[in-house]
Amino acid sequence: MNRETCLSFDRQDPLASVRDEFVLPEGVIYLDGNSLGALPRQTLPRMTQVIGEEWGSGLIRSWNAAHWIEAPARIGDKIARLIGAQAGEVIVADSTSVNLFKLLAEALRVQPERHFILTEASNFPTDLYVAQGLIELLGGNHALRVIERADIERSLDGSVAVLMLTHVDYASGEIHDMRGLTAAAQKFGALVLWDLSHSAGAVPVDLNAAQVDLAVGCGYKYLNGGPGAPAYLFVAKGLQGAIQSPLSGWMGHTAPFAFEPEYRPASGITRQLAGSPPILSMLALEVAIDLWLRVDQQEARRKSMALGDLFIKLVDETCHDLGVEVASPREARLRGSQVSLRHTEGYRVMRALIDRGVIGDFRAPDILRFGFSALYTRYVDVFDAVRRLREVLTSRAWNRPEYANRLPVT
Amino acid sequence: MNRETCLSFDRQDPLASVRDEFVLPEGVIYLDGNSLGALPRQTLPRMTQVIGEEWGSGLIRSWNAAHWIEAPARIGDKIARLIGAQAGEVIVADSTSVNLFKLLAEALRVQPERHFILTEASNFPTDLYVAQGLIELLGGNHALRVIERADIERSLDGSVAVLMLTHVDYASGEIHDMRGLTAAAQKFGALVLWDLSHSAGAVPVDLNAAQVDLAVGCGYKYLNGGPGAPAYLFVAKGLQGAIQSPLSGWMGHTAPFAFEPEYRPASGITRQLAGSPPILSMLALEVAIDLWLRVDQQEARRKSMALGDLFIKLVDETCHDLGVEVASPREARLRGSQVSLRHTEGYRVMRALIDRGVIGDFRAPDILRFGFSALYTRYVDVFDAVRRLREVLTSRAWNRPEYANRLPVT
Repeated sequence: MNRETCLSFDRQDPLASVRDEFVLPEGVIYLDGNSLGALPRQTLPRMTQVIGEEWGSGLIRSWNAAHWIEAPARIGDKIARLIGAQAGEVIVADSTSVNLFKLLAEALRVQPERHFILTEASNFPTDLYVAQGLIELLGGNHALRVIERADIERSLDGSVAVLMLTHVDYASGEIHDMRGLTAAAQKFGALVLWDLSHSAGAVPVDLNAAQVDLAVGCGYKYLNGGPGAPAYLFVAKGLQGAIQSPLSGWMGHTAPFAFEPEYRPASGITRQLAGSPPILSMLALEVAIDLWLRVDQQEARRKSMALGDLFIKLVDETCHDLGVEVASPREARLRGSQVSLRHTEGYRVMRALIDRGVIGDFRAPDILRFGFSALYTRYVDVFDAVRRLREVLTSRAWNRPEYANRLPVT
Repeated sequence: MNRETCLSFDRQDPLASVRDEFVLPEGVIYLDGNSLGALPRQTLPRMTQVIGEEWGSGLIRSWNAAHWIEAPARIGDKIARLIGAQAGEVIVADSTSVNLFKLLAEALRVQPERHFILTEASNFPTDLYVAQGLIELLGGNHALRVIERADIERSLDGSVAVLMLTHVDYASGEIHDMRGLTAAAQKFGALVLWDLSHSAGAVPVDLNAAQVDLAVGCGYKYLNGGPGAPAYLFVAKGLQGAIQSPLSGWMGHTAPFAFEPEYRPASGITRQLAGSPPILSMLALEVAIDLWLRVDQQEARRKSMALGDLFIKLVDETCHDLGVEVASPREARLRGSQVSLRHTEGYRVMRALIDRGVIGDFRAPDILRFGFSALYTRYVDVFDAVRRLREVLTSRAWNRPEYANRLPVT
């Protein structure tokens, strides 16, 4: 496998031209779209219009005239098409953590005889934190049962209110069997809530086909919505009568401008809104979703798997004796759009690599993550990234004192 | 009072030049900054930099290099200077509704022997809705006691956990005696939570001088942070050990990048963060706050009162027999930075007025709101606005069929 071969892959890549839809800095190989997606080329022109015209000239009128008021549902409907949901099943609101809180609270409320939230130890920590906070708020009648990944199915029983899992593991990139686990939990009458933060835009998701009950997900990773972009949540149509929201703010009221003293939830998914949505961040997200809707998702998946396979092959070939090991599934179909490596000095290695223009990220205690975006990562980027990784490892460039200091965000 | 006199007021206005710091559309008199503040001139250049350079080129590195990670606390510290709080007492996060939920939940949790949230019937409805949702979530051991404005003091007793009030009434603009009511509630051992959504940027607020416990507020009204700008919350220093957050997301963890399985709240106000903040909307807010910090707030208050007094005087002089009555306190010191009028066909009148270039808003059932921003409203704007209001009323232009249809946002 040499560089020329990778360049030829790029020439044959049916998605190669999509890279031109992004603004990417010169001299940087960006393999951290799993943490913050790159900037779509249309985002800045659109935001210039939103800020200058819609806000600046339209002012308050833009809630109607520029359809801001419809944005959470409109963008939700667009995201629905990316994750196998129907229109009216997804809405954009708040953050993933806050959305998780709403849906977990409702999953417990509608099943008062069931006391457990079941999840796995390797779930994204904020999902565990949110569940812990909710349970503490509810005063001790519920518990979070945290089990190992291998024990999920055998831990299901009639006491589980909701099985809460992240579809693609943030650290290893391993994919859960969404359909199988959903069915297994539902057999015991439990609801199933999937966190799609590392799935949407990374792997095909079909919530309706898997008969998923509830889901949440983030807008700023593979979806490219911008830093801290608003999140989304999904409630299956059949559950929308039962599932309300404990965060009963005015935007979720059936008549927000009637200013009634009593809360009456809006019908359907709209009741999941709480306060006024951050329109600038939300409309930046929409640009990115519109771009995704022009891409063949199966093609994107094929390319994502090929990029990951290439990365692993090159690491095996060139770095096998240098202290790194592959921490992701080697079989592409079991893996999201990232490959993780382990190295005992992972933090320093990543710092050194970033200084050499290859941006991935580090996750404690020892994981180097490399994310591949089918929309803008090239095969030659993968080749060059592994070559520089090898240079960092062979030269021990990571062993400089400046890399010992932890940055706030790592 | 004639137009020339108003123009001379503008020439003498020490804040007149601040208007140049805003982008305002031609031919529009904007009196709805109490609902969505106007666009500061620096916002678009700054957002161009944030999107193009910080996100586009800096990518994930900008969480450290562009100090995104510090934005919630940094902007919170700036807002603190506008509302009489100390650094470390305010943080920018989520929406006003969600922040209210967090603080109400904690106010109840830390006082388990007290069962009531006390509030007034004319509070902003979302504040009532949030309290209702929280109480329902907690399962019936608490109640929301909603009383008339005149009955607040006499309704205080040892069963009240928290007195929740909006400082400036959204409909009438009437200001509560923050210091007096705070002291009255604290005498009974209750906590006091103020919603500052219609106060910050409208009237001087000194939370520390009034010894306020808790507060929330919105960024997109008088503060000019942009549509749906993130909100803020305040927890007095002395309470920060006790007050946690039921929305225990990773950004409020003491070590968010340690990825520990157990939630451990950060110290101080930082624990009030939940999920990743919407950076674009947040940094737009910062531009507006930076502008506010360059303005003498006492001067702004003087001008705001003069604008309101002028408006009332002109309405009295020219519209007294046309079906409108003043619904705000006539005494400027009792009034926020708005004047409300009542008209039985208020919705239609406002629609007709907006079509004639005077933008205020309508609040059910019969309130026309006119907000004055000391930063960009001119005396001559007030004069022209009332003249057009008189035209709409005398011509009965509001009686056209197209104004009968309600828009989604009114």
